Amino acid sequence: MAGKGLKFRVILVEPFYEGNVGSVCRAMKNFGFDDLVLVKPCEMKDFAKAMASHAQDLLARARIVDTFEEAIEGADYLVATTGKPGARTSRHIRMPYFNPKELRQMLEDKSGTVALIFGREDVGLVNEYVERCDMVVYIPTSVEYPIMNLSHAATVILYELSGFEGGNIALADGKSLERLYSEFRELLVKINHPEHKRDKTLMMLRRVLGRAMLNNREFYTMIGIIRDVELKIERMEKEEVTEEESS
Amino acid sequence: MAGKGLKFRVILVEPFYEGNVGSVCRAMKNFGFDDLVLVKPCEMKDFAKAMASHAQDLLARARIVDTFEEAIEGADYLVATTGKPGARTSRHIRMPYFNPKELRQMLEDKSGTVALIFGREDVGLVNEYVERCDMVVYIPTSVEYPIMNLSHAATVILYELSGFEGGNIALADGKSLERLYSEFRELLVKINHPEHKRDKTLMMLRRVLGRAMLNNREFYTMIGIIRDVELKIERMEKEEVTEEESS
Repeated sequence: MAGKGLKFRVILVEPFYEGNVGSVCRAMKNFGFDDLVLVKPCEMKDFAKAMASHAQDLLARARIVDTFEEAIEGADYLVATTGKPGARTSRHIRMPYFNPKELRQMLEDKSGTVALIFGREDVGLVNEYVERCDMVVYIPTSVEYPIMNLSHAATVILYELSGFEGGNIALADGKSLERLYSEFRELLVKINHPEHKRDKTLMMLRRVLGRAMLNNREFYTMIGIIRDVELKIERMEKEEVTEEESS
Repeated sequence: MAGKGLKFRVILVEPFYEGNVGSVCRAMKNFGFDDLVLVKPCEMKDFAKAMASHAQDLLARARIVDTFEEAIEGADYLVATTGKPGARTSRHIRMPYFNPKELRQMLEDKSGTVALIFGREDVGLVNEYVERCDMVVYIPTSVEYPIMNLSHAATVILYELSGFEGGNIALADGKSLERLYSEFRELLVKINHPEHKRDKTLMMLRRVLGRAMLNNREFYTMIGIIRDVELKIERMEKEEVTEEESS
């Protein structure tokens, strides 16, 4: 949750070509972005600087962290980028996915901090991190050769979001959303939702609520409902126990 | 003039970093393009191939030519890309300019071969070539750092034009348009348009007709009108001479 308008953070997870990191800095500065976080990046020497060109200031200011959790700290909405979108609706991790124009449209009236997350050059963003994201974005590419260069993918997404200020509807903050999902998990346990289906059901909920882009008010209402349901169940369970005891 | 639909050609004028040439090949293949022409490029060795990645076939097929004229041979419509758009409406070379989304909209119903032309990494596309183009395209970037990496600029434009088939309205072919502009020049001479204004006026005409995207029928009508005007003037000049002789 932030003040009015959108802020964007670019997160590169374990990039291993320094030229790409420099190139991403250049694209960020070209399109007016300046918050870059690198998770366990490669060593960066002269070639990163050369590719950053007049964006070396941005490269120098980039925050380097050891974990994904540190990188997303303070971000309200996490966008996973991937060159490998989902293929089946029964698998929820990378499905549904949206293109950069749709992302822009969906963020049109929002405010908050949005993290744009890019994975490693060879494997892309792995499931462990995609699962944690609120939305999956895929750049429509040729079937023949869909995998883009890291800095090219960043360029396209930053180009689409450039000069974009968002609106007034505050996105629920990231930590609140995590609380919501953990409440949901507890609820699934309480209602005896089959254990082997829980992860999948939660992933689906994340994709549904992710694309709905919950605002704060909606978050409080939803978490309130879940708690009421839990309380109701707890009370009924106690009554059952009491009845059993008294019978 | 071509059959139904649009074909795109990418032309790089004197690129001098082989990595950029390879990167452009990759972006082209990512977005489904395959016609690349290089005008006096740098030497291309291993790094070009590395950056082309799975688009090395496209790099190997690229046509290498010595002149701009050879590169545009057979193209109907020439799009100059620039990081330095015009600033004053009184200078017509780089004004008006359009963004990639506008280019796509304008080409929506057209057919023919469109050349997307990119200049050198350091100076961009120089006036000598921008003047020959039918339209100037500029990617909206930050005032602070507007100059993009060559392959990033190509990526944005190819992304916008990807999967785009165009329509049925055949663009007038490039050679016809050049004839039209040379007829215009002759007409300006005939009507005593001030010599020092001729180049500027012709540049303006090119920008007006360029963004109008003339089709064949329009071309023939226009060239017909110019010729009629010229004939009329010639006949009147002859009559004047005859009258003078007889008086």
